[in-house]
Amino acid sequence: MLQAARRATATARTRTFARSLATEHNPPARFDSRRVFPDEPTHPRVQTDAVPGPRSKELSASIADFQDPRAHILVADYAKSNGNYLVDADGNQHLDVFAQIASIAIGYNHPDLLELAKTDQFAVAAMNRPAIGSFPGSDWAETIKAGLLSVAPKGTPHLFTQMDGSGANEGALKAAFMAYRARERKEAGIEDFTKDEMASCMNNASPGSPELVALSFKSGFHGRLFGSLSLTRSKAIHKLDIPAFDWPAVPWPSTKYPLDEYASENAEAEARTIALVEETIISHAKKGKKVAALIVEPVQAEGGDNHASPNFFKALRTVTREHGVYMIVDEVQTGVGATGSFWAHEKWQLDHPPDFVTFSKKMQAAGFYHAPETRPSLPYRNYNTWMGDPIRALQARELISFIKAHGLVQHTAAIGSELYDALSGLAKRYSGTMHNLRGKDCGTFIAWDAADAQQRDAFVAAMRKEGVVMGACGERAVRLRPMLIFGDRQMEVLLEKMEGVLKTLA
Amino acid sequence: MLQAARRATATARTRTFARSLATEHNPPARFDSRRVFPDEPTHPRVQTDAVPGPRSKELSASIADFQDPRAHILVADYAKSNGNYLVDADGNQHLDVFAQIASIAIGYNHPDLLELAKTDQFAVAAMNRPAIGSFPGSDWAETIKAGLLSVAPKGTPHLFTQMDGSGANEGALKAAFMAYRARERKEAGIEDFTKDEMASCMNNASPGSPELVALSFKSGFHGRLFGSLSLTRSKAIHKLDIPAFDWPAVPWPSTKYPLDEYASENAEAEARTIALVEETIISHAKKGKKVAALIVEPVQAEGGDNHASPNFFKALRTVTREHGVYMIVDEVQTGVGATGSFWAHEKWQLDHPPDFVTFSKKMQAAGFYHAPETRPSLPYRNYNTWMGDPIRALQARELISFIKAHGLVQHTAAIGSELYDALSGLAKRYSGTMHNLRGKDCGTFIAWDAADAQQRDAFVAAMRKEGVVMGACGERAVRLRPMLIFGDRQMEVLLEKMEGVLKTLA
Repeated sequence: MLQAARRATATARTRTFARSLATEHNPPARFDSRRVFPDEPTHPRVQTDAVPGPRSKELSASIADFQDPRAHILVADYAKSNGNYLVDADGNQHLDVFAQIASIAIGYNHPDLLELAKTDQFAVAAMNRPAIGSFPGSDWAETIKAGLLSVAPKGTPHLFTQMDGSGANEGALKAAFMAYRARERKEAGIEDFTKDEMASCMNNASPGSPELVALSFKSGFHGRLFGSLSLTRSKAIHKLDIPAFDWPAVPWPSTKYPLDEYASENAEAEARTIALVEETIISHAKKGKKVAALIVEPVQAEGGDNHASPNFFKALRTVTREHGVYMIVDEVQTGVGATGSFWAHEKWQLDHPPDFVTFSKKMQAAGFYHAPETRPSLPYRNYNTWMGDPIRALQARELISFIKAHGLVQHTAAIGSELYDALSGLAKRYSGTMHNLRGKDCGTFIAWDAADAQQRDAFVAAMRKEGVVMGACGERAVRLRPMLIFGDRQMEVLLEKMEGVLKTLA
Repeated sequence: MLQAARRATATARTRTFARSLATEHNPPARFDSRRVFPDEPTHPRVQTDAVPGPRSKELSASIADFQDPRAHILVADYAKSNGNYLVDADGNQHLDVFAQIASIAIGYNHPDLLELAKTDQFAVAAMNRPAIGSFPGSDWAETIKAGLLSVAPKGTPHLFTQMDGSGANEGALKAAFMAYRARERKEAGIEDFTKDEMASCMNNASPGSPELVALSFKSGFHGRLFGSLSLTRSKAIHKLDIPAFDWPAVPWPSTKYPLDEYASENAEAEARTIALVEETIISHAKKGKKVAALIVEPVQAEGGDNHASPNFFKALRTVTREHGVYMIVDEVQTGVGATGSFWAHEKWQLDHPPDFVTFSKKMQAAGFYHAPETRPSLPYRNYNTWMGDPIRALQARELISFIKAHGLVQHTAAIGSELYDALSGLAKRYSGTMHNLRGKDCGTFIAWDAADAQQRDAFVAAMRKEGVVMGACGERAVRLRPMLIFGDRQMEVLLEKMEGVLKTLA
């Protein structure tokens, strides 16, 4: 098959390139995706009258026989997709700066990943999925140490692997609740669970199922399962009709952009939020509902790409430590380089690292890093059948290795900076349609607001017709979530297409 | 590599065998695993003084650097494992009748699955994981229709794919809550969500986050995340220190085994439970906490392999329908053939099928089947980034195809029946250590009680030293969870080893 042959050539080429890089100590700050994806399209090409085209629609209709198709944007031909470009079932080529809701790190059909997929190790791992907590494979430690553990955030060298972002956040939250109660017992000189706790938890009642709560931020998003959905405050449609835990939330600081231009006003808004966080912790403790954990995204993504300053997060860390509240940093969307550092929270330069850092999406593997002292007191307390998936750990190892070898985090910081500047220019020229540009010094994790939801949706739809897949978030925001291999060529295309569409909307 | 060559030969052999079978209309009722796994060991071989052996221990210690190793049973060498036999890092060969907590359906390193893993389709699916709800792949409908949908239980032809069993149960539960509220609105002639609902759900408060509850059974197990853990009532250690929803549970009927010998007593016990279910539904409605859903395992697995009669489940279906309570059948552990029918609930011959059937484990893919009328009113209500994993859907398609071609469900029913009879004989001879044998006419889904937890643990440990990996459940039960390829040869070994160990414990 031509495609397979092409891939093999591309793979050989990358390997050589990677090897030559590995001998250098300073990988180039800018990455050109064509060196790895020689057949990557240079431009979008939409050949149907509409997107989705007729073939996409036909396949959607077939899916509708068994599954809800109403959120379909297009049906993709993943075999033909390449690098930054998503090809759809009608053969249209889209520059993809949404990347499966921020989940593709190093491009479609990356040769190194396809090569990994064809190895015996991968096949064996895929087809003999273990119960990792009880029968781990003999390569588990090696895979994790060379991969996920090699990028463990400072202060959180332990790892619990899960299946997805919601599971990662809930796993961390469970560990936080267990650690909180363990600390309370220790402080009270109690050695073990009481009989009352053992019995009451079987009835979902206190004290065994404690009245502890978790604190999150309004407009935050942490997942869709029952615990994570109780933390999530993005949109009513995510939460309606689902019973929820009576857990508190405080508003995100009402920051203005660019952050540095409004530094003093923002500092005041952030201080008010920190005060509210502290008030909530204290008032809930008085009600017998102690806040055991606080969860926060470095940038609120689904909720509208809401930023805050490093000082805000430093203050959060201080207030959580003062009140013995475990801090969970949800890096499901911000992690793995897109913000210009491997973990977005690195930029805060905290004196005391968070207790938990959760990840998923671009890492393909999911789970949480944690401080050693938050390991539960007994085995089987945080446990489940699969506890993650070895093939996703192998994939993470491979993509981390590529990111490091090619300096993709530095590359993303550099390209993001230029992109931000160019978008600033566009925002000035099209001030009626681009407001509140944000994400300066935040890699390619950039967003802006349209005038309203209708205009935003019109913009995204028009871009899609031009062959650029973009994402929306919050009430009226457009968010950029390109891959880490997004470079000069793609930036040029994106800006050109945006300008064309903005002209028609102005 | 020798192993790869062996595999290729085995694959070719199976393919021919499968093709020859496909032309017959009546696959043989008994399956001999050596026809597919020519190199499968014939007997366990333990060559270390203890299990885990020194190499397993060394690798466990390496994992302990970052992850809790206290639930490790052994470290496995999956590349060397074959058919019914799990090989550990020390080269010990174990007959595995636990199968990764009931998750391996058709054997370690099944040639068809390894062949699938090496296809371009699999590699592309693995390395370009889509957001299935918005950008499904062009082969998604075909994969699902040929696989997961081809075994959809009667009455539940729609499918929501998720990542694991906990997620499957929580997804079904979310859909049940949404459907319940939708029906209430319809009955009240209300068209849309109220402003109050939209606003209150953002604060996790009623009416938007309703006071609805879900009913489960004591000693049931439905998962480990916050919603599913509130349904779970297996062991305190699973639940302690984790906040829970105030959801009710009723005791499982106190059935005696063999079920048919105690038919009238059991019928009374079951009737008492049904009455309790109805009382709970009524009393909770009076408190403003309507029961929207009931979840039940066909056999309570983790909780101790507790059975009930088809009449019990028929009555459950009647009472749930009478009170408008959605019925979720949790087939995460019972599904995919092990009970001698593809779905355990088929045997109940319900007049009205359940509203939801959840699956995971042996299917490798996870999710829930549901009645068409339980699809949520709007897109993005039951939705998440990945919504399952295409490679697990491909794997499910392949293993379903093998199960069908080789009549493995009928095989398991037949071998299970013989195994049950043989175990009855053992239970008579070793009546001090084998009590309450259960699982007659339930395939290989068989269990019994030891005198107490200590004796049970001693038995399982002694069997492990003999090279048989077995599982425990409940307070003092041993459960058999062999694969669907467990046949005469393996039964012979199992019984021989059991007898040897039982002698020493008697």
